[in-house]
Amino acid sequence: MPRVSSAALNERRHEILEGARRCFAEHGYEGATVRLLEEATGKSRGAIFHHFTDKESLFLEIGREDALRMAETVAEEGLVQVMRDMLANPERFDWLSTRLEITRLLRTDAAFRDRWQQQQAVLDDAIRRRLQANADAGTMRTDVDPEVLYLYLETMFDGLTAKVASGVDSSAFSPVLDLVEDSVRRRDT
Amino acid sequence: MPRVSSAALNERRHEILEGARRCFAEHGYEGATVRLLEEATGKSRGAIFHHFTDKESLFLEIGREDALRMAETVAEEGLVQVMRDMLANPERFDWLSTRLEITRLLRTDAAFRDRWQQQQAVLDDAIRRRLQANADAGTMRTDVDPEVLYLYLETMFDGLTAKVASGVDSSAFSPVLDLVEDSVRRRDT
Repeated sequence: MPRVSSAALNERRHEILEGARRCFAEHGYEGATVRLLEEATGKSRGAIFHHFTDKESLFLEIGREDALRMAETVAEEGLVQVMRDMLANPERFDWLSTRLEITRLLRTDAAFRDRWQQQQAVLDDAIRRRLQANADAGTMRTDVDPEVLYLYLETMFDGLTAKVASGVDSSAFSPVLDLVEDSVRRRDT
Repeated sequence: MPRVSSAALNERRHEILEGARRCFAEHGYEGATVRLLEEATGKSRGAIFHHFTDKESLFLEIGREDALRMAETVAEEGLVQVMRDMLANPERFDWLSTRLEITRLLRTDAAFRDRWQQQQAVLDDAIRRRLQANADAGTMRTDVDPEVLYLYLETMFDGLTAKVASGVDSSAFSPVLDLVEDSVRRRDT
């Protein structure tokens, strides 16, 4: 058996993730069969499942990468900026429609839900920390529980994901985000 | 061939719709095969497709019924009340998760999107009329374009659908809707 360098292994792993991301975006979680994943990644099922135990693990790893990337933006500019990025580059967020497709799975498969929530924790933490920082800076309204503002922004994020995923005219939603931003801002009464 | 009264035909049609609704809620749009639809409705494929041309038409008819029902609530009490009903009775809205599953179809299948939008027009109209009535009554903020408020409420509705469909604790979202209601209300400056 030939020895493969760890750089080459990392490279392969990366290629599998990128191909799988395109495949899930196009066919959905259920629709992305192992055959389609082979085609999209250019790798055999043996190679794919050498890196990822099964389809679910592969999917969750892409979700984890996404959560990490969004958490970085949240830390620096907030969740509303993540939503503005979605509007500006909807094609880069194609994969997000799979977040909607898995809602039934989240409700009915407790093991899947646990793994998913674990992968998304980094994003949830970033959103909560950002809200706390804004509260400390006095830029956020104080008459509403921060946990309510957190759920509010998260719900808006899911809603915008659905809008973008269904192919609406993104530009129309920019003033909606102004309204969202305004509604969590400190009230000057 | 036995003659069937039109009351009996209506009864059958209704049974097919109810069974199909449960089937789509459980298995999703893609997952609801003709065999599963037969099982859920207790009718043969011949009987099902006598009433509805194909699976897509059956699905769209359920969507139309939903839109009509929600439009009635919107007309009387507004879209936020529809969302409060969702939180109060999440199990009655199981089917709504299919609204999320079809986002990819809306983006990629123009014929499907046209038919879907046609079925949903009654709900969109009701929301717009309700917003206009609130504007006329002076209860709605006037510093934001009504069309923006419309998109804002619609996006929140989609987001809440995703939350409820993924099985969150609904009660936590009640204050979120208070915030939404407050953010479209007339500003007293």
